[in-house]
Parts: sequence; structure tokens; C-alpha cells
Amino acid sequence: MLIVQKYGGTSVGSLERIKAVAQRVAESVRAGAKVAVVVSAMSGETDRLIGLAGSLCKRPEEREMDLLLSSGERVSAALTALALKELGVKAMSFTGRQTGIRTDKAHTRAKIEKITATRVKKALDNDTVAVIAGFQGVTEDEDVTTLGRGGSDLTAVALAAALDADLCEIYTDVEGVYTTDPNIVPEARKMEKISYDEMLELASLGAKVLQTRSVEFAKKYGVPLVVKSSFNNAPGTYIVKEDKQMEKVVVSGVTYDKNQSKLTVLGVPDKPGIAGRLFSEIAGSGLVVDMIVQNISPDGKSTDISFTIPKTDSPRGLDLTKRFAAEFGAKGVDLKDDISKVSIVGVGMRTHSGVAAKMFETLAAHNINIMMIGTSEIKVSCVIESKYTELAVRVLHEAFGLENG
Amino acid sequence: MLIVQKYGGTSVGSLERIKAVAQRVAESVRAGAKVAVVVSAMSGETDRLIGLAGSLCKRPEEREMDLLLSSGERVSAALTALALKELGVKAMSFTGRQTGIRTDKAHTRAKIEKITATRVKKALDNDTVAVIAGFQGVTEDEDVTTLGRGGSDLTAVALAAALDADLCEIYTDVEGVYTTDPNIVPEARKMEKISYDEMLELASLGAKVLQTRSVEFAKKYGVPLVVKSSFNNAPGTYIVKEDKQMEKVVVSGVTYDKNQSKLTVLGVPDKPGIAGRLFSEIAGSGLVVDMIVQNISPDGKSTDISFTIPKTDSPRGLDLTKRFAAEFGAKGVDLKDDISKVSIVGVGMRTHSGVAAKMFETLAAHNINIMMIGTSEIKVSCVIESKYTELAVRVLHEAFGLENG
Repeated sequence: MLIVQKYGGTSVGSLERIKAVAQRVAESVRAGAKVAVVVSAMSGETDRLIGLAGSLCKRPEEREMDLLLSSGERVSAALTALALKELGVKAMSFTGRQTGIRTDKAHTRAKIEKITATRVKKALDNDTVAVIAGFQGVTEDEDVTTLGRGGSDLTAVALAAALDADLCEIYTDVEGVYTTDPNIVPEARKMEKISYDEMLELASLGAKVLQTRSVEFAKKYGVPLVVKSSFNNAPGTYIVKEDKQMEKVVVSGVTYDKNQSKLTVLGVPDKPGIAGRLFSEIAGSGLVVDMIVQNISPDGKSTDISFTIPKTDSPRGLDLTKRFAAEFGAKGVDLKDDISKVSIVGVGMRTHSGVAAKMFETLAAHNINIMMIGTSEIKVSCVIESKYTELAVRVLHEAFGLENG
Repeated sequence: MLIVQKYGGTSVGSLERIKAVAQRVAESVRAGAKVAVVVSAMSGETDRLIGLAGSLCKRPEEREMDLLLSSGERVSAALTALALKELGVKAMSFTGRQTGIRTDKAHTRAKIEKITATRVKKALDNDTVAVIAGFQGVTEDEDVTTLGRGGSDLTAVALAAALDADLCEIYTDVEGVYTTDPNIVPEARKMEKISYDEMLELASLGAKVLQTRSVEFAKKYGVPLVVKSSFNNAPGTYIVKEDKQMEKVVVSGVTYDKNQSKLTVLGVPDKPGIAGRLFSEIAGSGLVVDMIVQNISPDGKSTDISFTIPKTDSPRGLDLTKRFAAEFGAKGVDLKDDISKVSIVGVGMRTHSGVAAKMFETLAAHNINIMMIGTSEIKVSCVIESKYTELAVRVLHEAFGLENG
């Protein structure tokens, strides 16, 4: 059994915590597993380093930031290896370079191009725990790169793929992925198992525990993941390939996003190609659009186009759509910042009908008006007024019986 | 003009200090120099990291310590490069590996085997300041190594040799090398210029400002050094090849060492080979002997052998000499911990006679008893009772007119 274990910043946040991590790794070793451990920087360290750079200059150059930030994970790796040895477990630390993690040159958000892991394999063959500094790699020019926020998750998943590991365990400060935000719904239940796609669609709910890119990577290479707490021994949430059993559950989780704004261009002349022009301009300016809805107006001659963008980009989006509206003779532009998106997610939707209808009815029964609707194969999203977010999440969680599993 | 500048831990000890370093580098660049900057870890950082490792285990493995400790200099290099860019100076950071510093495998005290400095040269050719993380290199297996305490000095000197630099400037928190310890003799004078050999013989006096190995390296490759303060613009002390002018000064400095103990094996039978046996046993047990004196006893049949070792090793030295004395029929062993070694140093001694005599007379005139005498070409050392150290230093400093230059 070959396991990759990843420990996040809070899990290695102090010497005591590092000792606890070493204990946990030692248990896996004693149980007969070969273990590669990926560690993040001690919690607070990355922010401390970013703060130092930020005090020196407003826009620190990214190549320097990568050298700066990569040091945090190196410290954790060395300390964790030391803690393991102190327990009598053979261990050896490896930097991103020593792990053979080659990336592209996109500093601070580099993409992994290749992992050789030669030295890591050799250590594992030697019954030595390999402790890997997460979050980092090197370019072909030998420059140090980092993989972006949550990049240690990606290191772990990519390494698990490279090593053809049996399991990639992601240890963090929560016990797993929940059916919804337990702060809103106390009855929220920890899921035992979900599919990669569901994890991805759970978006913000899932992203809190696992970097999105690492889930995409795990899906692509079929790496079985489990998310669990490093603070106790509770079983976590497995994120795996979709199976028949999963389809029995129609809705797996309810998620929400309060960070979107809704822009509407009103009374756009109904001519071919106009929507295309609008969205290519938006994309060209770097705005990321989430949902898009277009309605034909009652007179059949003009149309309203609505879309959502990140709230922080709404001033820029407003300027752009105003210019567009003027140029193409639209009637006006409307911006709504106080919206939120509530979504239900589940692979079972593919084979069950009536799921969307039940969602709309449930919201309507509580007088929550739906402003936009978007769907994917395994997700239905509704844009509603922001103030109803918590209510909507609660009633949907109940309507789909999520508290009972 | 190509200059290597090295800034120690206190010189980069805070963001304000790093900004000041960047200003100083920028001035050199504006004056037309090509500059390579070697930086230490921010003061306190190395000790903090050692403390973390020490809390995890008693004898941290050295390979892990090297990965751990090397992170401090990387942080300094990145921050210094950022501070330079903020001033509009083109700059780029380099790790030990990126500088092409290949070392042997002696972790925590590695020796530099080779410096390619390809990327550093390219940066300098490009009018870009190269900021190098000091203290570190890599083995041929790509493992990170460190060069021991004060290793950044060695990085700077070795890099200066590799780049054939015109000057290697060592910036620190003192203004240069003094004729003696200013805490003992307020009249101690900063030397304008001394030779590599004098700097080496000044030992503890010199070692406080510059790592001994780096002086040896500078001597071997003829790298001109200057030690100066990063806190003001006072001219520092040049450490250069010996020249005629230097010989005019008979004594350059007075130094002392309170960290030695004196061991005497009394009444050793006067047979050939016994001293050889003793010192090969001592060397074999890892004890570093400084001075050795052997006297024939009055009866001509036995001899007393005295030597000094570091005070911290004296219990070990005592055990060893006791066993030796028993084995070879010596009369006994005597240990004195309350001694110190006072030395006068100067290349002028080679061509001036009577220097040693003047030293002995000066000490005698103040009733300071001399317990051992050792000489080299450019140094005379006397072991005296520890309580007279400060008095001896003061009267010797005055006797050789050092306060007047």
C-alpha cells in the first residue's frame, strides 16, 4: 500500500502539531504502508512572508515572491522529517526540485508539467518516508516556482498520480466535505463519499477543503482522494470516481456563493451576433462570467441579457456594459450587487427527473424569488436576493432530505 | 569595476535595514560598478530555526538542518532583490544552486568545491544586480548544504574569486578590525589595512568580523577584502596581500583568547616517541590542540608536556591524559582552566628583532607570570592567568604604541 498524505498549514502550525503529524505518519508506516508526506508552510508563515514583501513594494515581482514563499514549505518539510526520525521512523526531506516537479514559467501560479519523483521512489523503496515541501516546483531554467494558493494539494495529488499511489489523504482542519455549510444548517452531514464532479460543482463548499485544480487533476488521473481531519481519527470524505451507488442519491449537497454580481443589458436589439460581441469584449477585458441568461422581450424585437461576474469586478463590468449598450442602441444597464447563487449538486440528477422543479417549488413556497436559473448535468443554480441565502440553503437541505444521508 | 558586497544578519535584520542595504547597493551601481550582493539570513532567523529543530530532537540530522537553515538566506535574497527593484535598480535573486555553488557532502560545514556562477555573470553582463543567498550550496546529488557559521562570508569571497572581482566588501555591524578589543582598551584604533596572515593570526579578534575560512580562501586566491559598517560611511579595514609598507609596523594588533584550558602531563619518562603517542591519541579523539610546550626536567630523565585545548573539551582531555599518564608511568596530570592566551600579531616581526623580548618584559614589569610561550613568524603568544587578561592587553597595546597607528 502506497499512500500520499498531505498536511495543511494548521496541521503543521506548531511544533506540537508537527509531532502529532509525525505520530500519524508513523502509525501508517507501522501498519505497513509506504508513505510520502506533502507539507504546507506552518500556518501564518506564508502570510508573514507576503507581508514582508508587501512592505517593501506594492507589486513585488513574481519570480522573487516564489523564491520567498517557497521557503515556508521547506522549513516544514525539514522539521517534519526531523520529528519522524525522532520517533525512529526513517525519513528524508525533498524540495520541489528534488522531487523532480517541473513546472511552466507562470510564477506564483505555475502549472505542473512533469513529475519524475526519482528520489522519492528510491526513498520509498528503501522503506524511508519521503517528506516533500509542497506548493513548489522549478522551471526548466531552474527557477523556483509556486503553484498558487492551496498548491500543496496539487503537489500531493500530482505526486500520487506520478507514484501510482493507492490513496491520497488530504489532512486538514475540518473532518471532510459537508452536505452544506454547517454554520447555516446545523444538521449538515459529513458526506462519506462523493464524485470528483460533485466536488467540483460544490465549488466554494468544496474549495474550502481542497484546491479546485487538485480535484480536476485527481479526476483526470483517477487518483482516489480522502479529506479528513488531522486533529482526530474521524473517517473523512472520499472523493472518487462516480459509481452506480452514488446515483441513488439525487442531491448530494447544497452550496452557495455570495460573491457574485448580476449585470443586465436591457432592450438589446435582437440581431444575430450581438451577444457574441458582448461576451467576447467581456472576456477580452479579463472578467470571468459565471451564469448567462438571455430572454426575448415580449415584443419579440429586443432582448435582455443578464450575466453574473465576481462582485469585486462589478464596477469594471458596469463601465464595459454601459459603453456596449450605448454603442449597440440598447435601452440601458442594470447592476445588482445584493444577489447570491444557491445550488444543488448531485450525480443522481442525471437519472432522476423533477429535481429542478422541486428546487423551484421549494424556493417559491418560501416566497424566495428566482432571478436567474442555470443548470449543468449535475447541478442546478438559482440566483436569488442575497438576504434569502441562508433561508434558501436551509429549506433546500431539508427538502432533499440531506440531513438523513 | 566589479564588486561583491556581503551583508551580514544585522545589516539585513529588518525591512528598514534591507531598504538601507538596497540604497547602498544602488549608490554603487550609480557610481558605475557591477555589483553582486551576498546576503545572510535576517538576524535571529538562523537561531530561531535551530531552536525549532532543537525542540523536536536532540541531535537533528544534518542534512535536514541544512534544508531548514538555508531557507533564511533565501528569504533575505528575495526581499533584497525586491527592495532594489523598488528603487528602480535591475536585480535578480539567486540561490546557492542557481549560483552554481557545488560543495562536498559534509552537511552543516560543507566545503565549496566549485563555483560556476554562470547565471550571476549573465545578470551582471546585463547590468542587473545579482542578489545571492549566502551560506549555502548543493552537492552533486542536488542536496542542499550549508557552509557553517559565518558561511556567507565564504560565499562572498569564493564568488569574488570566481568572478575575478576587483573588490569584496564585507558589510557588518562594526566599522572594521581594531588593534585590540575596544571594550578592554578604549584607545583601540581601527586598522586601515592589514595582511591576510595578520587577520588570520588575530584569530578571535578577527573572527568576530570575518569567518576564518573566508580569509584563508581570500588569501589563496588573492581576493582583496574590505570590512566596513553597513550603518555608516566610515572607511573600513582593507585585508590585502602583504606589502613593504606593512612591514614598517612591527605589531599590528593585540588579541586574546579566554576559551582555552591548559593540561600538563608531569614527569613523563624521556623516551622517544612518547609525545608522538600522546598527541596522536588526542587528535584521534577529536580534541583540537592549540599550543604545545615540552620541558626537560632538571634531572634530565623525565619531561613535562603542556598543551592547551578548548575549555569545553577539558573534562574529556583530562580523562584522556590521566589514562595516558597511567599507561606510560608519568607522575601525574595537571589541569588549569583559569588561563588565557594573549598574543601580539604583526608582519613586521619578520624583519624586526626583540619583539618577543619586549612583550615578555612588558608583562614582567606588571608582575604577570608567563606560563607558556608560543611563536609563529608573525605572532607571539603567552599563556597567563586569566585574571590578568585585560591588564596584559592594555599594557601590550600601549607598549607597542598601537593607539597612535
